[in-house]
Amino acid sequence: MKRTHAALALLVLGVTAMTAVSDEGMWLPNDPPREQLRAKYGFDLTDAWLKNAMLASVRLISGGGGGSGGFVSPDGLFVTNHHVAADSVQKLSTPGLDLYADGFYAVTRDGELKCPDLEINVLQEIADVTAEVNAAVKPDMKPAEAFAARRAVMSKIEKESLDKTGLRSDVVTLYNGGLYHLYRYKKYTDVRLVFSPEKAVAGFGGDVDNFEYPRMNLDVAFFRAYEDGKPARTPHFFRWSEAGPKENDLVFVTGHPGTTQRLETLARLKHRRDFTLPYTLARLRTLEAALLQYSEQHPEKRRQAATDLHSVANARKAFSGQLQGLLDPAVMWAKREAEIDLVLKANAPLNEPFETRPHFTDKNPRQKAGWALFGAIEEVAAIQKKYAAFEKEHALLEAGHAFFSPLFSTARHIVRLADELPKPSADRLREYRDSNLDSLKFSLFSPAPIYPELEKAKLTASLTFLAENLGGEHPVMDVVLGRDVFGGANPAQRAEGLVSRTKLSDPAERKRLVDGGKKAVDESKDPMILLAKAVDAEARKLRTRYETEVEEPERRAYAAIAEARFLTLGKSVAPDATFTLRLAFGTVKGYEVGRDEKLPFHTTFGQAFEKHAALGGREPFDLPKRWLDGKDKLDPATPFNFVSTADTIGGNSGSPVLNRAGELVGVNFDRNRHGLVRNFVYTDVQARHIAVHSRAVLEALRKLYPAAPLVKELTGK
Amino acid sequence: MKRTHAALALLVLGVTAMTAVSDEGMWLPNDPPREQLRAKYGFDLTDAWLKNAMLASVRLISGGGGGSGGFVSPDGLFVTNHHVAADSVQKLSTPGLDLYADGFYAVTRDGELKCPDLEINVLQEIADVTAEVNAAVKPDMKPAEAFAARRAVMSKIEKESLDKTGLRSDVVTLYNGGLYHLYRYKKYTDVRLVFSPEKAVAGFGGDVDNFEYPRMNLDVAFFRAYEDGKPARTPHFFRWSEAGPKENDLVFVTGHPGTTQRLETLARLKHRRDFTLPYTLARLRTLEAALLQYSEQHPEKRRQAATDLHSVANARKAFSGQLQGLLDPAVMWAKREAEIDLVLKANAPLNEPFETRPHFTDKNPRQKAGWALFGAIEEVAAIQKKYAAFEKEHALLEAGHAFFSPLFSTARHIVRLADELPKPSADRLREYRDSNLDSLKFSLFSPAPIYPELEKAKLTASLTFLAENLGGEHPVMDVVLGRDVFGGANPAQRAEGLVSRTKLSDPAERKRLVDGGKKAVDESKDPMILLAKAVDAEARKLRTRYETEVEEPERRAYAAIAEARFLTLGKSVAPDATFTLRLAFGTVKGYEVGRDEKLPFHTTFGQAFEKHAALGGREPFDLPKRWLDGKDKLDPATPFNFVSTADTIGGNSGSPVLNRAGELVGVNFDRNRHGLVRNFVYTDVQARHIAVHSRAVLEALRKLYPAAPLVKELTGK
Repeated sequence: MKRTHAALALLVLGVTAMTAVSDEGMWLPNDPPREQLRAKYGFDLTDAWLKNAMLASVRLISGGGGGSGGFVSPDGLFVTNHHVAADSVQKLSTPGLDLYADGFYAVTRDGELKCPDLEINVLQEIADVTAEVNAAVKPDMKPAEAFAARRAVMSKIEKESLDKTGLRSDVVTLYNGGLYHLYRYKKYTDVRLVFSPEKAVAGFGGDVDNFEYPRMNLDVAFFRAYEDGKPARTPHFFRWSEAGPKENDLVFVTGHPGTTQRLETLARLKHRRDFTLPYTLARLRTLEAALLQYSEQHPEKRRQAATDLHSVANARKAFSGQLQGLLDPAVMWAKREAEIDLVLKANAPLNEPFETRPHFTDKNPRQKAGWALFGAIEEVAAIQKKYAAFEKEHALLEAGHAFFSPLFSTARHIVRLADELPKPSADRLREYRDSNLDSLKFSLFSPAPIYPELEKAKLTASLTFLAENLGGEHPVMDVVLGRDVFGGANPAQRAEGLVSRTKLSDPAERKRLVDGGKKAVDESKDPMILLAKAVDAEARKLRTRYETEVEEPERRAYAAIAEARFLTLGKSVAPDATFTLRLAFGTVKGYEVGRDEKLPFHTTFGQAFEKHAALGGREPFDLPKRWLDGKDKLDPATPFNFVSTADTIGGNSGSPVLNRAGELVGVNFDRNRHGLVRNFVYTDVQARHIAVHSRAVLEALRKLYPAAPLVKELTGK
Repeated sequence: MKRTHAALALLVLGVTAMTAVSDEGMWLPNDPPREQLRAKYGFDLTDAWLKNAMLASVRLISGGGGGSGGFVSPDGLFVTNHHVAADSVQKLSTPGLDLYADGFYAVTRDGELKCPDLEINVLQEIADVTAEVNAAVKPDMKPAEAFAARRAVMSKIEKESLDKTGLRSDVVTLYNGGLYHLYRYKKYTDVRLVFSPEKAVAGFGGDVDNFEYPRMNLDVAFFRAYEDGKPARTPHFFRWSEAGPKENDLVFVTGHPGTTQRLETLARLKHRRDFTLPYTLARLRTLEAALLQYSEQHPEKRRQAATDLHSVANARKAFSGQLQGLLDPAVMWAKREAEIDLVLKANAPLNEPFETRPHFTDKNPRQKAGWALFGAIEEVAAIQKKYAAFEKEHALLEAGHAFFSPLFSTARHIVRLADELPKPSADRLREYRDSNLDSLKFSLFSPAPIYPELEKAKLTASLTFLAENLGGEHPVMDVVLGRDVFGGANPAQRAEGLVSRTKLSDPAERKRLVDGGKKAVDESKDPMILLAKAVDAEARKLRTRYETEVEEPERRAYAAIAEARFLTLGKSVAPDATFTLRLAFGTVKGYEVGRDEKLPFHTTFGQAFEKHAALGGREPFDLPKRWLDGKDKLDPATPFNFVSTADTIGGNSGSPVLNRAGELVGVNFDRNRHGLVRNFVYTDVQARHIAVHSRAVLEALRKLYPAAPLVKELTGK
């Protein structure tokens, strides 16, 4: 144990001192790690390789979540994970037709199933708009003005880009405020399900084996993008490798990592450890308990809650790992050292006494930045203290944790659209800017089914969690529990009343209210609309407070930190993840556990059958009937999953794993638990990402599934 | 919904105004509800009936939990619930021999299995010692002195009683400090398992149906008390009724309800709602998630964690119901009204202006008590504010929530015994008083198995919960995570180190350390002993703070409230439950749900088979093989479980349910969810306790189990 600690600490320190030796980094496509790849792997990252990787990579957005994928044919076919596809597959299922559990394959294109609200994005280009964004924010502006000015200029840039190119245009904040880049995406909203295996083999081992290795999961699914009712033309795609990767191969991961916190200050990480993570875990455990209890009542309820339960349990496990990481003295010690290291390096040439330094700051930008770093680090610490005073209320009422139901989020959007749309785009809450309206409405009017009993259970749990956090006397409880209107109810009774009387399950009613604008919303007696209206003033107040007391000051402070970092260390450290396209690289290799045990770089089909047998075929170790019946058809030595040292995080699910030739050799789907700490530090001591081997997919499709046309499309054979 | 609220509110108010009409009350055996029974049911509660009920009722204590039971033969045979027996049955199980899941029956007495640490108590007599206790506490004592004086006099009374009678002697605090009674018990520590059914039928419906009705559970188990290696002679026992109860029958419940909070002030209940219950639920959800994850890893791990998981899930569901109750405006409104009502009644004859009242207080005890009531209610409110400042730390470090493992509680007892035993009994922490030492050591040296991997999982979860609540910078974390000694570890690593290196799994090592006293403990390098020592100063400080800032002042305030209550309302309200013998009564009847649906007063065997079939025999709705195979042997119309309006709470599990003749017609095992609010208010609107029908037990034993000797012992046939 101690040996591992020390090794981890060294590697963590290596982040700043010896980047070249590690495989750290989720790199920007427009600032790729050419030197690192040449130095460590002798690989020449060409423009053509990069261009194909960018145009063949896919970002999925649906149901508030998202993931990654990659085109694998010129006809719009793309691969992702089964667990990324789950949201759509679940929405395509109905009582008695459980595609999520039982799988699906469309033998012909006519049979491909259109997803109710799945949008995919394909990055086309990136432009640096840092100067334009920063120019709009004057140094003497108060935080509220600065926030408004920044929001306005970002909306303006996006709107102009959309009008000019017709592409989805998002301004992305990098280095927590150090850079602003404009991302332009081609967008598809007609996406159809082609193939999805049974949940029992896609997620073999379930929550038990999530974030563990060895793994044996067929965690893949295939969709097809359509344009104008026809399969999209996608000349940039990844060729499916028949061979897959070998041990010690260099591989690349091209996907959309969601969020990391590696460049956050120590004070910010301590705030996460002592405040945000405990709150988050308490919330997830509350929801998980409620969903589990609901699931156990009846097989159909189990079906309804399956994907909610999976995502909550997955998040609970990921955040638990993060908390263990931040409670690990080795990790925190390394973060502290790294912070001190940056401060020392940034101020290295200045041996003058502190008091006289301001006189030097204008002469040399490096000196100025080094000096500003002290204040910025302190400022971030001070912001955390301010944030703690209202973080829970903000999360509960504005981020919506108190109202864990799409019925509420729908109601809130309807209420806010009525208030926001009459304003100029630049002045609106950011999600209602013109350039985002199409995507928002696509999701808002989704015909995906809603199950009232499930929503009652979720809402009961989250309303109860609200009461637990704010206390029964908090003024907002009068509104939320209806004490101000009808004498009130406890959370369970309130959830019952809200869900059984709202009409928002019907997309036509949502559309009627949105189209009817403020008048229609004001006249609505829908209890969910009334609730969303009743808490809106308080929620908006918390949002403004967050923007002006936390978000804007943090951006400024981090911009100063980034400035010092760039001038001192250059861009040798990639920005934290932002759910935008990144390129990671690593080596395919196993790792040691315990004194004498080494886990190999890949598992096999045979091991899946062995584990099924050893654990009595009991859920979640129950291979599907098709696999048990077809066992003899399969080569048990077929590689199933493999691991590499490449740097990934949540959001990378479904990411193509590529070889030097740019062929797809795997589909990333998980990290092991040693990798959970990667939110804060990169390490390759035991930490690995896990991918489905390209050969496993072909072997299963050829031998077990009646999917010859799909195999032909992937391989030409 | 509203109708029910109003009805509930009326009933709640009825508590003080119209006690005679409701079945409220867990009555003291020495102050039984003779008048209520005569008035409402025309039943004459004779001394002989009461004496038999008292001497045939059993209290079970094991593994930190407990329950109720009743002798059912003159040879020491007693019945309780399967879920009360679970702790012992689990401890008698081993890998490969799962008595908890698979059941057990000893055909001959030789085969009865001795439980490692089950103690049972049979109440022999009660004496009122209020005057003696109060005389020891002088009005001018400071809280710390008063607490010490009260503790000393209680220890003295208990010790003298033990020396005089040889009986276990406990001074019990009633009405939160209004009365002190001395309870004398006959104690048995040689208790053997006779019969336990399969978990799947004992707990049919599992967590899903826990606190629900209709229910179909064979939640019974039989033990036999032994004395001097022979079956105990128990001339007082309950005859087993072949017929069981009919609809509208009067029934009695004689058992040991654990705790209720009905006499607490409104401020205390709000503190529970906004502070204690949210904390408790967060803790239980944390433990439940950890135990579930552990269970799912392997069938053997599932077996190991089964009873921990059941008790945590059961508590989570009970406390969730309590929280919904305290968030119900109707309940809180009723509590407020009841408090105002008491204040008004207590001060009714005093029409003089407030300012002049103190002049009157010495003339009339009723006036004095009425006047003191104001201050006492305010004092309880003020105490809650003080408590909030350290309640979590107290619960985590002193109550031991941070260290959820018998290995830690064993270590703590060993460390504290070494410090406490040299002191005079009256000065020790209360659990180490002379009169309690035998029971403590019986539990401490238990040979029950301990599973290291399970303890690691539990300790990881609870250490993490500690960090979540106190934050990583809290000084105690340095000690708990070993940062002060070896550089530290995160909770998972720390739990691994503690459990894998402690020797306290071995009862001989525990005994060696206890026998070796302070010297042996000081020399021990056992990491669990070192941990218990390292946190002891802080834990004791929190305990003292609790005793002097909360416990003692609350006792005084509640004594004043009780005084006013007695003088105004008499003892028309029973004291809150204290895990001592109480008598409740009620009517066997079903209840309405929804507009037109009525649930009958009993369920049948047939319904169990129907539910099994309807839910596909999927756990927890999977009747055992014996039942499925033997279905045709059973009369499907056999009553299985029944409900009555009698007043019960947790701790009543296993309570005998008796008819007018004092025969056992059922074994209480649960409340429905409407009854969860009974911690705070009694209601019979839908709220019911649930019992196994006496006929169901006989039918199952006769037709399915090879248990003829047991049937003969119960029925003489």
